[in-house]
Amino acid sequence: MPTITSRDNPQVKSVCALSVSGKKRRETGLFVCEGFTLLDEALRSGLAPRQVFCLEGQEGRLPPLECPVTAVSGPVLQKLSDVPAPQGVVFTLPLPKAPEALSGTRFLALDELRDPGNLGTVLRTADAFGLDGVILLGDCADPYSPKAVRSAMGSLFRVVLHHMDPQELGQAMKRLDLPLYAAALDTDSRPVTQTELHRACVVVGNEAHGVSAAVKRLCRGSVIIPIQNAESLNAGVAAGILMWEMSR
Amino acid sequence: MPTITSRDNPQVKSVCALSVSGKKRRETGLFVCEGFTLLDEALRSGLAPRQVFCLEGQEGRLPPLECPVTAVSGPVLQKLSDVPAPQGVVFTLPLPKAPEALSGTRFLALDELRDPGNLGTVLRTADAFGLDGVILLGDCADPYSPKAVRSAMGSLFRVVLHHMDPQELGQAMKRLDLPLYAAALDTDSRPVTQTELHRACVVVGNEAHGVSAAVKRLCRGSVIIPIQNAESLNAGVAAGILMWEMSR
Repeated sequence: MPTITSRDNPQVKSVCALSVSGKKRRETGLFVCEGFTLLDEALRSGLAPRQVFCLEGQEGRLPPLECPVTAVSGPVLQKLSDVPAPQGVVFTLPLPKAPEALSGTRFLALDELRDPGNLGTVLRTADAFGLDGVILLGDCADPYSPKAVRSAMGSLFRVVLHHMDPQELGQAMKRLDLPLYAAALDTDSRPVTQTELHRACVVVGNEAHGVSAAVKRLCRGSVIIPIQNAESLNAGVAAGILMWEMSR
Repeated sequence: MPTITSRDNPQVKSVCALSVSGKKRRETGLFVCEGFTLLDEALRSGLAPRQVFCLEGQEGRLPPLECPVTAVSGPVLQKLSDVPAPQGVVFTLPLPKAPEALSGTRFLALDELRDPGNLGTVLRTADAFGLDGVILLGDCADPYSPKAVRSAMGSLFRVVLHHMDPQELGQAMKRLDLPLYAAALDTDSRPVTQTELHRACVVVGNEAHGVSAAVKRLCRGSVIIPIQNAESLNAGVAAGILMWEMSR
């Protein structure tokens, strides 16, 4: 097996470019993951890694693979990795195709959620509670950026992810005959405990500005998780409680 | 007002040391915060900043202060700050004194929770749901590290934080006549929906290993948030749902 020992190797540089640039990911149709656990989960989800870079000496930990595998030195792995303590393997995967039309009864939509860690956490929770899909509205964080991939863990491979504009979301919910609610701290918001959420789509807004007025206009109403202190909940926690209420 | 323009200024260096070192924070009894909003929240919580460093030209945004205020250049503020886009002001606060004995009916304990972002998020949620205290067991992330401070937002100033060893926690819960539960994915865990949590202390475990066996032995039993897929929830989300169930 060839071993890459130069941090300036062109293959290394092109993987690093995929990590830092969403544009590069879209151009090539690839994104970067790391860790043996995530590699196993990708294979279990039927995904085909395109290229695998493994720390030299750790090749025995690799599952059977049908793509090129390259051994790399510790410093090269560190360069490929997005974390201070790399997990021994970095690999590229093809971006998934856009899914078919929405189907199901329980959805979460994210309106310009910007933090990739929050987005990954939302995907992990959506998977845990078996939601039928997560819808990204407008300029959300990129679910295929390294931090989102890391936070989502294997859930990234299982959750059905849709990109839509608000009008499309409104139409899809009409077609499915599901109510669309905005999670909002408005005075006329209805407590989630008094709202039927087992058949619904709830929109969680941007970390700083909440759900936009344009999206709220498409909603049947607003729901609130009643809180006593603090100004608001973290977006990932709020989304988690909403998805729990949709499943509870 | 004096303006610091050198990134090597000794005052600047000593604030940076407080940001990176928990030992330095304990030695000096100080920690570092940033942002005008957090400064306002600190004052509103009755805390007295020890020293304030404000971006030159932004002094007009400062509230009335009784401590030394120093203007700093943009590059110096960047050095003082823990984020890529600093918020115009960095300040030091005294570490709070250890609180009196536990009192109340609803507590969350964290058993070696290691991620400072998760810890800060838990404090923000505990504040939102009005918990009577958060108990840190063993080697948790430092709530006064910059990332935890940033995630907790002003809630850090309002939540009653206890450091204990597991035995002390067990004794405190006996004294208060409150059940202690471990949040765990064990097969014999009882669903949170079937457990009375309005008077209780729930322990959330380490991100990788969950609640330790030693802590579990002190508990009346284990509770679980039932999930369909994924291996587990993010610790901050799990803690959020548990606190919501304690308040719901």
